Parts: sequence; C-alpha cells; structure tokens
Amino acid sequence: MADNKKMVAEITSMDQDFAQWYTDIVKKAELVDYSGVKGCMIIRPYGYAIWENIQHILDAEFKKLGHENVYMPMFIPESLLQKEKDHVAGFAPECAVVTIGGQNVLSERLIVRPTSETLFCDHYKNIIHSYRDLPKLYNQWCNVVRWEKTTRPFLRTSEFLWQEGHTMHETEEEAREETLRMLNCYADFYEKTLAIPVIKGRKTEKEKFAGAKETYTVEPMMHNGFALQGGTSHYFGDGFCRAFGITFTAKDNTVKYPHQTSWGVSTRMIGAIIMSHGDDNGLVLPPAIAPIQVVIIPVAQHKPGVIEAAKALADKLGERFRVKLDDSDQSSGWKYSQYEMKGVPLRLEIGPRDIENNSCVLVSRVTREKQFVSLDGITDSVEAALATVHDELYNRAKENLANRTSVALSYDELLTIAEEKSGFIKAMWCGDTECEEKIKNDTNGVKSRCIPFNEEHLSDTCVCCGKPAKHMVVWGRQY
Amino acid sequence: MADNKKMVAEITSMDQDFAQWYTDIVKKAELVDYSGVKGCMIIRPYGYAIWENIQHILDAEFKKLGHENVYMPMFIPESLLQKEKDHVAGFAPECAVVTIGGQNVLSERLIVRPTSETLFCDHYKNIIHSYRDLPKLYNQWCNVVRWEKTTRPFLRTSEFLWQEGHTMHETEEEAREETLRMLNCYADFYEKTLAIPVIKGRKTEKEKFAGAKETYTVEPMMHNGFALQGGTSHYFGDGFCRAFGITFTAKDNTVKYPHQTSWGVSTRMIGAIIMSHGDDNGLVLPPAIAPIQVVIIPVAQHKPGVIEAAKALADKLGERFRVKLDDSDQSSGWKYSQYEMKGVPLRLEIGPRDIENNSCVLVSRVTREKQFVSLDGITDSVEAALATVHDELYNRAKENLANRTSVALSYDELLTIAEEKSGFIKAMWCGDTECEEKIKNDTNGVKSRCIPFNEEHLSDTCVCCGKPAKHMVVWGRQY
Repeated sequence: MADNKKMVAEITSMDQDFAQWYTDIVKKAELVDYSGVKGCMIIRPYGYAIWENIQHILDAEFKKLGHENVYMPMFIPESLLQKEKDHVAGFAPECAVVTIGGQNVLSERLIVRPTSETLFCDHYKNIIHSYRDLPKLYNQWCNVVRWEKTTRPFLRTSEFLWQEGHTMHETEEEAREETLRMLNCYADFYEKTLAIPVIKGRKTEKEKFAGAKETYTVEPMMHNGFALQGGTSHYFGDGFCRAFGITFTAKDNTVKYPHQTSWGVSTRMIGAIIMSHGDDNGLVLPPAIAPIQVVIIPVAQHKPGVIEAAKALADKLGERFRVKLDDSDQSSGWKYSQYEMKGVPLRLEIGPRDIENNSCVLVSRVTREKQFVSLDGITDSVEAALATVHDELYNRAKENLANRTSVALSYDELLTIAEEKSGFIKAMWCGDTECEEKIKNDTNGVKSRCIPFNEEHLSDTCVCCGKPAKHMVVWGRQY
Repeated sequence: MADNKKMVAEITSMDQDFAQWYTDIVKKAELVDYSGVKGCMIIRPYGYAIWENIQHILDAEFKKLGHENVYMPMFIPESLLQKEKDHVAGFAPECAVVTIGGQNVLSERLIVRPTSETLFCDHYKNIIHSYRDLPKLYNQWCNVVRWEKTTRPFLRTSEFLWQEGHTMHETEEEAREETLRMLNCYADFYEKTLAIPVIKGRKTEKEKFAGAKETYTVEPMMHNGFALQGGTSHYFGDGFCRAFGITFTAKDNTVKYPHQTSWGVSTRMIGAIIMSHGDDNGLVLPPAIAPIQVVIIPVAQHKPGVIEAAKALADKLGERFRVKLDDSDQSSGWKYSQYEMKGVPLRLEIGPRDIENNSCVLVSRVTREKQFVSLDGITDSVEAALATVHDELYNRAKENLANRTSVALSYDELLTIAEEKSGFIKAMWCGDTECEEKIKNDTNGVKSRCIPFNEEHLSDTCVCCGKPAKHMVVWGRQY
C-alpha cells in the first residue's frame, strides 16, 4: 500500500493543476517522450498501440463506406499550394519549408504537407474525365506538419499523425451527403468506441477550414471545461476544381466540375481520451481501444498453483480480449497502481483463496470497486464488465458535458459565465464575424465552437449586439 | 478477343524494352501515378492495397517476435544526425533540408529523416538505464526521404514508405541473433508470401550501411537479370551507443553499452514483385498479397440467372478470399485482359452452360490454362488453385535465378559474362575494396551483392587480382 501511495502521489491532481496533471499522465503512463525536435513528440509503444487500435476500427469503417486508401507525396511544390487562394492564405503562416535537396538549393521550394487537398486535386485532374470516374473516395493515413509556437503532446504538435479523406462527386447533393456521412462516422466513433459524447455542428464563417464552403465539426468537452475540435468534415463545392481545372463529361455530355469533400481526425483524439476519462490515479481507457483490456495479477504468487492458475486464466481470456499477465517480482500494490496509471479497464486478481473458491477478484478502473467472480463463465463476466466500463465512462462524460454547459441570455451573463465557469456557453448570435471577435476579445479567448445541429431558440436577439439572431451558437475555450 | 488484343498491345514487351515494360505496368495496372513533385510517386488504391497486405503480414510477424511499434519525429536536427561520423557521411549527400518553419529561418536546420537510427538513439538514451530495460525491440512504419537524381516508381524514389526496426540488447550475442533473426524473417516473407527466392548473405565492407559493423541482405533476381537489395539487417555493435552516451547498469553492477541492430524493408518490395513475376500481359501477383485474389466474370450476363449465380459464387468465396465480381457492361474480352493486366491470380467465368452443369471455368493467371471446376467444393478448389499459383510463381522465379547465375573462374570469364549475360556471377574474392572497385569499373556497374551464407569454394584465388581468396562473392548489376 505504501508503494501504491507513492506512485499515485507522483501525479499532480487535476484540481491543483490541470495542465500538469495532463503532462504527468502522458509521461508516466508512457504514452509519449519529448524529442530533441522542437514541437515534435515521440509516440511510445503504449501510446502508439492506442493509435493502432483507433486506426484499425476507423479504417474498417471507412472501407465499409466504400473508401480506398492511397498515398500522396509528403512535399507540395509551393506553386501548387498557391493555386487556391483562401487555402494558401490559411496555411502559409504555419508551413515547414524544404529549400535544400541533395546538397543543392531547390529551384522551387517544397512545403511539407500541412494537409493534402492540393496534391489530391493535382492527381484527380489526371484521373477524372467522365462521370464513370466518379465518385472518387480516397483516404490516406500519414504525417502532416503545421508549425506551432506552443505545443502540447497529442493536442498541438508541429508534426502529427492523422487520416485525411478526399472525395470527388458528380453532384453537390452527393458531396454534401458525404460530408455529413463522415461527420456522423466520427461522431459514432467518439460515442460508441471512445465513450465520449460530442456536439455535432457547423463552423461559423470565421472558423471554417481554409478554402471550404462549409466545415462541420464534432466537439467533445474535456474535464476542465475546455473544448477540443475532435474531427472535421468539409464541403468544398467546386472551388478547388475550378482552380485546378478538374472537369468531367456528365451523362448529358456537358462538361462539369466535380464537387469535393475532405475530412480528418488525428492523434489529437488520444488527448481527448485522456482529458475526457482520466482521473487523479492516471489514465482511464475506453475498452475498445485499450492496448490492455484486462490485466491479471497473481496474488501470493510464490504459493503453489497460483502462477499456473493465473496463466490458465490469461490463456482463456486471451482468446477474446487483449490480456496481460503480470507475474513480475514487483509488489501487488505497485502493480495495482501501475495498471491504474496506464488506464487498463479491468484488473483481475487471483490468489490461493480465490483458486480454492473457483473465483477471482474483478476490479473496474472506473469505479475501483472489487467483486468476486466465478471462474466458470469468466469470459462472459469480463465481456459484461468491459461493456459496463464503457457505459460508465460514457455516462460520466455525458454528465460532465451537461454540467459544463450554460445558457447566456445577455452579454453580461455571457461575460460572467466566461469568467466564473468553464465549459460550453449556449447563446444566440446575429451571424456577424465582428460579434464573434468581440466576444473572443472580451472573454480572453471564448470562441464559437459551432452552430449545433440541435439548435435551440433561446431568444430573438444576438447576445452581443442585440440585432436579430440568426443562430444559436455553442461557445467555449479550446485546446 | 479484339478488345483483348488491343489491351495487351498497350504494354511494351519485356524483351523489347524492359524499362518501358516496367513503366507500362506500374501505370496501366494503376499502381502509381507520377506526381508534380520531383522524384515522388503517388501510390494509387491498387498499389497501396498491395502495400497494406504486405504491412499486415509483416507487422504480425514482427509482433510475434516481440517487437512493438512506435513513432519518431520525421525531422532530425542537423547536430543529431552528425553525432555518428560514418552515418552522417553516408547520408549527408542525399538529404532534404527544412530551413524555414512558420515563416522564420530556423536556428538549426532540420533533416527530413533518411533513416532514424539517430532519433531512436536519442530516445533510448532517456529510457535505457538498467538491464531490466533491455532488450528494447521497437519498429516504426513511416515515410523517409533520400534525395535521388534518377528515380523509378517503387525502385528508387526520393520519398518512400518503409518499416525500420531498431533494437537494443544486453550482449553482442543477443544483438547478432536479432540481426539474423530479422534477416531470416525477411527471407521467409520473400519466399513464402511473395513467392520470390532470395540469396541471403553479408555485404562487403564497401557496401555496408553507413555506421554498421555488419550489413546482411536478401537479394532476389529480377526477370532481366538485375539484382535488387530486397531488405537489409544491420548489426551496429555499440558504436552509436558510445556516440550518444547510452549506457545501462548490468546485473553485475557494471556500467555497459548496449548492442544495437536495425532492419528495414520498403515499398521497393512492390518493384521486386513486378519484376519477378510480371509478364507481357501485365502484372502477376502472388496470392498472399493480391488485393483481388479471385475475379468472377459472368458470361452472357444478360441471360436469366447468370448474374444471380455469379453473385452467389462471389458471396460464397468472399467468406474466405478477396473476391471481386465484375458485372459491369464491358465486354468479357475486355474484362479478361483487364484483370490479367492487374495480375489477379485466378479468374472464374460463369455462364448459362456452366450453371446448367453446376460448374464454372477457372483460369490461372500464371499458366492461363482453363479448367472446368464443379461448384460443389468450389472453396477448396480455389484454395488449392491459389496454392498452385504460388508454387508455380516460386518455381518459375527459382528457375530464373538458377538460369541467370553464372560462375567465373578467371577475370576474362567474369568480363565476358558481365558483357554477354545478365544475372548473378559467382566468383572468388581476396577481400580488398580495390578489387571490388576495379570490377565495377571494368564491367560498367557489376557490384558485389553479398558474401552468401552458402559460400562455395570455386578456387583458391581472387578472380580479380589473383591473391589468395577469402570469400566467394555474388556479383551483379542492381536497381
């Protein structure tokens, strides 16, 4: 127990210093290491295994929806990035630029991709000619670079890993459907796989992706009341196609521009998991993506038969779950806190008395409650317990979201909430960017998160300027 | 049949122009597209699906052998790359260099990773302290950049995809075992998965990886007699560890340097597949990595019951194999040549008469022979036919390797073979780099491929200088 306390004491408590709590978790749960490269992180095996599980599930979903994976170059010639004006204006300030190759100064500078719309368009121009070539439903898993001044592992790094879907369609309607289909795909993934409830909505003009006609977003709520842009899906219309000269011959023999979408989620998701589910004992992982779903700890393992029983249990459960047996010579107390720190959803303890009773002790990472479970039907018991962990995580996060959502009917109310509370603020808005900017300045950083699909009518007037309101907006501070 | 001929005629024949044949295949089988970025390729869905299958199988092998995946930054600060002298000397000439980030000139230039030994060492320095921390068995799947003057899709591109394993061990013996274990892992993958026989051996001093003590290689033989470095595994000793100050406290409480390995294979493998198995009708894919293993073509598909029977067959086979049903309105002839071009191992044709007979026609991509097969037990028949395709490919490649391997007992003989034949030349060697260089110059490019594990004693003297021979070397021209 002394060991246990010692371990736990190493994490700063969330209430004391949320930022330090986060840093402690990513380091001590061995998710990342800092690298010697400014703003770039090393994703360690335990962190990368979470990303692999995320990739595995999402990739299968994308393929089920008809998408194919491809790989585009990581470099974008500067002239290519400049073809769509809004796009280059958005990304130019955060580019990493290659100016030397093979010891020679390059005649054209190469941008390390911050996103790949321009590369996909350059390729689509070559392969789209007829309506028969549409739709094109491509995706790629890769690294991208956006030069950041202040960085934080997973949340904001100069290099990150992500997937970017880029699709082309015959009609606006089809492309708009795809945009929302993929947004819903992300929302479902957050809720059903990561146990994180999200608000789905549309970005305001000001917060849109550079070059997009519409940007949709899923926004989860963190423990400390901060929002996070959890994933975005963009409808481009035919703007890039016009800039790149991508046309196709339609069924009626006219020449048309295709309609385009793109959508992406990144390793930032791991930050969302940490800040949605973690607690003062460390990480808490949703079962679907946990690298270890069940850890088995033999108790009094020097006693005859204990290790054997633990191994038999691990073998049995290993057929269905990701299981780790820890029979190292560390104390049980050390092991308990170690796997709590690592967020393993379930712990099974098995010792001489349990073996006698044909049972083991099952401990949930969420509630930390112990229960005795029969070894008969243990697979079903574990399955049920994992489902319970998922539900409890989801419900807890949903409660947090509800608790941290306020309504502001007047500007004073908005300013007071922004100062005194953390979380989402629902308030009416006239539609003008000026009001967004004023709110941001007056609150020191509260921005529009989205116009949610479930808009409510709170009042008739903009909370900021008093003019007629066009929309209800969800506002909040963001990572 | 007219269509068929037309399609086939579009590929240059191998004998006429091997380089053009290769280019035709990568383009027309839709494996790659050229990009606007010098030396970088676009890997299209069909090409990327091959890479995904390769990754899937290799990754499972690596994990079975205890390796864990991680992700390191893609940038290497110039000072870090310079820490190991031989290493930087080897890679400096082919680096892409980032000099600008976020619109500012960087205080330290960043190299886009050509390989990641230095980054792994920088991390290992932080996490290796005790013998308890060893071994470390890390791998990463990523993109790397080596600036190339002349490029060819898959074989030599400025950016390519690969995996790089980097491991650290307590003892030299353990590290040497790992080096050979991974070489054998590659050799098995080439032979059992890709149906490509390889020569396993050790690189000469001159051909070693920059900074390695030993480099081992697997070398397959292409259709045109060229060799290809198919995969390499390096033993580093403790050179990098000394340069980076990586030490651990051993069991006997002394402070020691760990012993290091690295090993990698890349998208170049796809080039090896094309040039080992392809023919004048297009690509031929080994079943284990073929994105489509079986294509089903309904014949006279407007006749009642044909499409339904083809769909039923596709559903049944789809439970076990990667199956595509092509019921598009293209002619059967077009479809036949299309899927031959794409290298699909098996084609099943089903028409009204076949349905009557409860059978279908099975055509192997390798032999192009047709056979009637009963629909009863069709799954087993397809399984057996795929195994036969693999074996036939392997045997054909093995025969090519044998036919294209010569022995040179004198220097004249070596020069004559180098001029008149293509392929491997076995010849004795004194061990001096000067003789390697002389052979390369006198033959216009024949280099030592490796000192094979199965060394033969052909004579007592070096084929070049006549001094006592130390080794038999396999020589050849390379991609």
